[in-house]
Amino acid sequence: MESQSVDVFAQKYKQLLDEKLRQLVEELNAPTIIKESMIYSLEAGGKRIRPLLLFATLEAFGIDAKNGLYAAAAIEMIHTYSLIHDDLPSMDNDDLRRGKPTNHKIFGDAIATLAGDALLTYSFEVMNKIPDDFASPATKLNVIVEMAKAAGAEGMVGGQVADMEGEGKILTLEELDYIHIHKTGKLLRFSVLAGAMLAGASESQLTGLSGFAHHLGLAFQIQDDILDLVGNQQLMGKPVGSDTSNHKSTYPQLLSLKGAQAALRKQIDLAKANLAKTGLETNLLLEITDLVASRNH
Amino acid sequence: MESQSVDVFAQKYKQLLDEKLRQLVEELNAPTIIKESMIYSLEAGGKRIRPLLLFATLEAFGIDAKNGLYAAAAIEMIHTYSLIHDDLPSMDNDDLRRGKPTNHKIFGDAIATLAGDALLTYSFEVMNKIPDDFASPATKLNVIVEMAKAAGAEGMVGGQVADMEGEGKILTLEELDYIHIHKTGKLLRFSVLAGAMLAGASESQLTGLSGFAHHLGLAFQIQDDILDLVGNQQLMGKPVGSDTSNHKSTYPQLLSLKGAQAALRKQIDLAKANLAKTGLETNLLLEITDLVASRNH
Repeated sequence: MESQSVDVFAQKYKQLLDEKLRQLVEELNAPTIIKESMIYSLEAGGKRIRPLLLFATLEAFGIDAKNGLYAAAAIEMIHTYSLIHDDLPSMDNDDLRRGKPTNHKIFGDAIATLAGDALLTYSFEVMNKIPDDFASPATKLNVIVEMAKAAGAEGMVGGQVADMEGEGKILTLEELDYIHIHKTGKLLRFSVLAGAMLAGASESQLTGLSGFAHHLGLAFQIQDDILDLVGNQQLMGKPVGSDTSNHKSTYPQLLSLKGAQAALRKQIDLAKANLAKTGLETNLLLEITDLVASRNH
Repeated sequence: MESQSVDVFAQKYKQLLDEKLRQLVEELNAPTIIKESMIYSLEAGGKRIRPLLLFATLEAFGIDAKNGLYAAAAIEMIHTYSLIHDDLPSMDNDDLRRGKPTNHKIFGDAIATLAGDALLTYSFEVMNKIPDDFASPATKLNVIVEMAKAAGAEGMVGGQVADMEGEGKILTLEELDYIHIHKTGKLLRFSVLAGAMLAGASESQLTGLSGFAHHLGLAFQIQDDILDLVGNQQLMGKPVGSDTSNHKSTYPQLLSLKGAQAALRKQIDLAKANLAKTGLETNLLLEITDLVASRNH
């Protein structure tokens, strides 16, 4: 494989993914309003970090990233559903997401709830659209089960519950890790694992990639907390300091800003060490790792 | 197979299912509060009509209903999630369900939303727990995809959207059919289809059973509307006439009470005619059909 910069790679596949996401929703035989609501949030300008991880993982195995388009769409649908539900008045009650009105501010709470439900449900159907000549039914079933685990009570939903339960409390570092490993970490990790499973990874490659993604997920969240404290409001699309005003514990709070920056570097190092064990062509994954560490929004 | 009454059959499998549902949630490694919320609604005393249809369909093929336990649990989780979300203040805003406080009245709107999300997500994982010696990965994958279709924007969620959009309006019979075919019909139909798929049904058996379940679902909903008008509040677990006070269109409204009763008989006849085409041992399914037609709650 020719070496390519992650920027060009990301832009190419982001466009393919955006088209696929819109097409998948448009072809649904369903009431117009629910499709509009689903598309609104799918197109709200996310960074597509999870799809990017999946695409880059496939490339690490020398497999054309295009083969991961349906899997990436399924993952982005789950991520998007979680944002829609998290923003609801009964949850985080956010009016803005990435600088745009949140789904329920446009479509109302009921349609927003149902659009989330529909995206979550559709993701399982979309995962099955991976062509049979690329993945066997047994492989697709394994991927679907891992996706359910990453998204459900033992994963993302459990993390969201712990996050809400922790509001207004001073958490221990262990409790804060639990929240982030589950709320964002499990789906990030699944994005890498899904690529590896589809690529037919060995057990030891799965272990290495799983460790990589685990530490990358924590790094991502620590950097998020740091940016919330010192970031640029316009780039972030949400008010700086909103975690503090929401009474949420953050890494800088528990570790100081310097301590959080050190923890970030440690997670990045651990991520890279795990990646090195796989023996794969990991230049894209390494570039993504450096982007996570240095991103400013 | 020895002939058995549907009452004894239903009671036996309801108990096995209730135990399995509780066990499946208890074994989740997740925050206690979300497990309590999931179990609360799973144990809120439903009629378990969908699992019963799946079990009876398996028996129609001469297959021990016990083999359908995981599939039945998955379907009941989806049904329960839909009730939790439908009852939310932003949706139907119901305080009571089957005579008990609704999930959000006990656990709050946020946990109720997340418990619904967790049940929906878990259902896909639970479906995969069907032992491999009973169903191949390819069959389980097909069943999972049909479940997603029945539950999602083209099925149950789409029906709920249409139901909400229709509130306060006088609907045509076609619009009312659309709502019920999707909101309750698709998952009822899937319950029968899942049993048939797991039993290795032929194409013509699938067609017959699909037609059977379609008409049974409409009969179920027409009887629901009739009961809402003339039923017994204590048996129903919700105030009689609540559809009218919610400004929802009903079959008796559009067809008169006599017309709705005639439509009910017609759907029951069509259901039985479809069943007769399958050449299966359908005594249990026929008994269930008669129960739907004559139920008083």
